[in-house]
Amino acid sequence: MHSEKWTVAPASRAMDGALREKIDRKTKPLGALGQLEDIALQIGRARQSLSPSLNRPHMVVFAGDHGAAKAGVSAFPQDVTWQMVENFLAGGAAINVFARANGLALTIVDSGVAHDFDDDGFGARAGLTDAKIAAGTGNYLEGPAMTAAQRDEAMKRGAEIVRQLADEGCEIVGFGEMGIGNSAAASLITHCLTGAPLAECVGRGTGHDDEGLARKGALLLQALQIWNGDRADPLAVMARFGGFEIAMMTGAMLAAAREKMLVLVDGFICGAAALTAARMAPAFLDYAIFCHASAEPGTRAQLAAMQAAPLLDLGLRLGEGTGAALAFPLARAACAFLNEMASFDSAGVSEKL
Amino acid sequence: MHSEKWTVAPASRAMDGALREKIDRKTKPLGALGQLEDIALQIGRARQSLSPSLNRPHMVVFAGDHGAAKAGVSAFPQDVTWQMVENFLAGGAAINVFARANGLALTIVDSGVAHDFDDDGFGARAGLTDAKIAAGTGNYLEGPAMTAAQRDEAMKRGAEIVRQLADEGCEIVGFGEMGIGNSAAASLITHCLTGAPLAECVGRGTGHDDEGLARKGALLLQALQIWNGDRADPLAVMARFGGFEIAMMTGAMLAAAREKMLVLVDGFICGAAALTAARMAPAFLDYAIFCHASAEPGTRAQLAAMQAAPLLDLGLRLGEGTGAALAFPLARAACAFLNEMASFDSAGVSEKL
Repeated sequence: MHSEKWTVAPASRAMDGALREKIDRKTKPLGALGQLEDIALQIGRARQSLSPSLNRPHMVVFAGDHGAAKAGVSAFPQDVTWQMVENFLAGGAAINVFARANGLALTIVDSGVAHDFDDDGFGARAGLTDAKIAAGTGNYLEGPAMTAAQRDEAMKRGAEIVRQLADEGCEIVGFGEMGIGNSAAASLITHCLTGAPLAECVGRGTGHDDEGLARKGALLLQALQIWNGDRADPLAVMARFGGFEIAMMTGAMLAAAREKMLVLVDGFICGAAALTAARMAPAFLDYAIFCHASAEPGTRAQLAAMQAAPLLDLGLRLGEGTGAALAFPLARAACAFLNEMASFDSAGVSEKL
Repeated sequence: MHSEKWTVAPASRAMDGALREKIDRKTKPLGALGQLEDIALQIGRARQSLSPSLNRPHMVVFAGDHGAAKAGVSAFPQDVTWQMVENFLAGGAAINVFARANGLALTIVDSGVAHDFDDDGFGARAGLTDAKIAAGTGNYLEGPAMTAAQRDEAMKRGAEIVRQLADEGCEIVGFGEMGIGNSAAASLITHCLTGAPLAECVGRGTGHDDEGLARKGALLLQALQIWNGDRADPLAVMARFGGFEIAMMTGAMLAAAREKMLVLVDGFICGAAALTAARMAPAFLDYAIFCHASAEPGTRAQLAAMQAAPLLDLGLRLGEGTGAALAFPLARAACAFLNEMASFDSAGVSEKL
């Protein structure tokens, strides 16, 4: 059922030769633009064009709360989730600043925050997309984070948000997240889907000290021990340990790939959604641009599992999609050189001796 | 004489505490913006402001020819230098594309190209800054690349170009270069000033094969063997092995630091100029933002000698200042978060438990 709905067709390789030829004829030594050449090829392939565009770039930030947060998996109180959503809506968070600086539109989505954002008495809040599944997930230390129906609904709503963007002409979308406790959820997903040791998948999140890190690790081990599900099944893992924001982002990522949009993958939490998407539909990776290597240690296991080489490695560990927004100018530059740079022939420049 | 003229006063550390406090009060976990926080601190310190700006960002590309190019140190013919200058003037090179994409103005300077760009019969060429010292340097396999007077004149003209930009309100400047044979010059400068083995300082440049790389290495060894100068003296090394574009950039970098402008340092050739500047005036490094780790192997020795951690590592080896133009949005984002992000207090966000 799921498998059919979420299928992603591999991007055709038919134009690869022509794209490579176009890149190689540019006035530069062969390969001299390094990883940007790979990105240019990927963009051309994804869009099936020798002159692709990346119109209407957009960041979507999904926010949700985690039942396990009350058990102490995070260094920050759960209220920070809704408080940061207010900060997003006021334009004062890092993702607002970076999206503005780099020309990306920004949509904030309530995927399942344990807070009522209603400010008009009719259930709506200006500037906030209401896709709330529930007021936070269940605590995976006691049971599943969400039901299968909630998971499916979250993925469906994520897909709908992206299809709307595609209808509006968006060709590249970046995703971010906010959710106190969601690095713990991402650790569990990463451990289950990659098989990397739990200790290599758990990090300091928003800033645990050594004691907090040890407590987080012990709680996550306990969460794994009380669950007998199939750890290789991405949908089962998502329902047990995931967050509404992570599930919604997974659906959004798969829908973006189906729409042949480029997907900017941020750090560790988004990496867990990307890993889930890739396990459901490996061709998702044809559309995924990995933006940065998060300081969260579990990122290494994710990137290795997806054979991904991220564009930035700045020691970022903020989330919100900040690494995606920061990397976007590199994708835009890759697309621009493919379109705008002169060739040896057109510029009359001599070639290698 | 030189030492006084090119002195750079260290940027005051007096505001470091207030800058760090401002960064730490932003709505993000402590240190979560990684290297961008270091850059924000550096910008605030360099500009001596808690609310710095990076107005009128500008790239300056210096072009010059090298006498040693005829001996076979490059994989491309010498004519490519002037042909690429024409490409810059026509707007078709990678640096044009990236400067446009990222909002940087661009100035092209003839520092010493072996070509007459005059197109109006009066010695001028629209769009090209004429600072030509001579039609290419001498061949360091036979004698010095330039006289001391030529070197000093090149540095002076570079400084003048930057002071003009400062007068016009430019607060951040990136440098690039074009010059067939200049990776060989940069290798010799890097070897002399860092003491790293020559073999670790010599790379494929624009694209030598194994045979070409071996020939380049042998020629550079020969160039070193016939010179008895002081390898630790940056000005002596510049005169013997440098290029007019490298000397001019060195003067430009030192002048930019004296004007308290931020300096975007591109890859290997610009790194040789930065190394020279740092040896002449160590406080230059207070103003230098290292933009990328070039694929040229000698970059490692440069970065180690200057204890620099570059922002990007994309396998670039194009020059022209392309890495600087690509990294500029990261510097801009660092400045923007310092200015625009809300604090925990202003946003009403709870702090760590």
